[in-house]
Amino acid sequence: MERQGLLYVISAPSGAGKTTLCHALIDLLPELGHSISFTTRPIRVGEVDGVDYHFVSPVTFQQMIDDKAFVEWAEVHGNYYGTAVKTLTDACDSGRDILLDIDFQGAVQLKERGVEAVFIFIAPPSFSELESRLRGRNTDSAEVVACRIKNAHGEMQEAKWYDYVIINDDLDVALMELKSVICAERCRSRHMFPIVAQSLNIITSK
Amino acid sequence: MERQGLLYVISAPSGAGKTTLCHALIDLLPELGHSISFTTRPIRVGEVDGVDYHFVSPVTFQQMIDDKAFVEWAEVHGNYYGTAVKTLTDACDSGRDILLDIDFQGAVQLKERGVEAVFIFIAPPSFSELESRLRGRNTDSAEVVACRIKNAHGEMQEAKWYDYVIINDDLDVALMELKSVICAERCRSRHMFPIVAQSLNIITSK
Repeated sequence: MERQGLLYVISAPSGAGKTTLCHALIDLLPELGHSISFTTRPIRVGEVDGVDYHFVSPVTFQQMIDDKAFVEWAEVHGNYYGTAVKTLTDACDSGRDILLDIDFQGAVQLKERGVEAVFIFIAPPSFSELESRLRGRNTDSAEVVACRIKNAHGEMQEAKWYDYVIINDDLDVALMELKSVICAERCRSRHMFPIVAQSLNIITSK
Repeated sequence: MERQGLLYVISAPSGAGKTTLCHALIDLLPELGHSISFTTRPIRVGEVDGVDYHFVSPVTFQQMIDDKAFVEWAEVHGNYYGTAVKTLTDACDSGRDILLDIDFQGAVQLKERGVEAVFIFIAPPSFSELESRLRGRNTDSAEVVACRIKNAHGEMQEAKWYDYVIINDDLDVALMELKSVICAERCRSRHMFPIVAQSLNIITSK
């Protein structure tokens, strides 16, 4: 029985530690694929095209929208980000589980389209901690930090429709919880029962 | 915000390794309570009343049925087994998660009553392995082993309505999966969102 790959969608307010957690998770579970998004955002020093993102021009991105090549896309802070349909179908068909860290707008699109995925929300332990982390990055102006904090208040409301909420207070604890979610979802009866039934040669009349 | 305890219901065909797994799980997660069932079965050498089971007379058991003191009860191989309502409500109110390893008949009763629980099915890797394990125990006659194998074929059908199916081929892998299910379920949005919302002082208008 061929197993279909599962899709894990991870979102978080900026500064909640999603990127660090996702990288640590893939170190722990290297069989997990990491979906590479398309973006119109300029490439940053240290980033690699095709590894961090597929960096494309606004014209190419618009063409992909027109071609319905995206399962979700969103504009965030003036740049476009999108996940190609092909990225997901290829992973699913190959039986490989895939991690998709995307913005809330994109996650909502997947949810509304009824895409079968596990939705995981990473929450900060407090807004003061979130602010402290964002300031500690030293990559954003005070104005941008204030904007991110303001957005985070609204984004936290989204957590209620996610399947799981993980509070990233202690990184090791959050990582263990995230890994547990990935492993547990693989044991879901709807995935496992057909495999068990076939291997045990059970008649599944009903 | 007070957290309510979660209920984990574990069932398996005889010989699938449920008891070993449950004991190993509680060693790993000692905060997890293990529900102690009531039974009319005679106490065996090495068993302790109030630890392995609450051993009661058939008359007492019947009185408890009449008093609706059981959330589930079943007759298995001529003996009665039941879980007291009080065991679950006490655990739930105290915020302690509780493990309930019970027969399929009991699990179905809980499911049909709409008891909020996580249903976990432990499956053997194959019927030949199940047979080999049952014979290896040297506790049952060939006739009893044959009966248990026959029952297992029917019981495996039940796996499809459980939330999770864990194949106990390698004990360490199965234990890791079981632990993941326990930890992941604690991160479910329906449990975590109210806690997060309160700690972040989010207005939950909707």
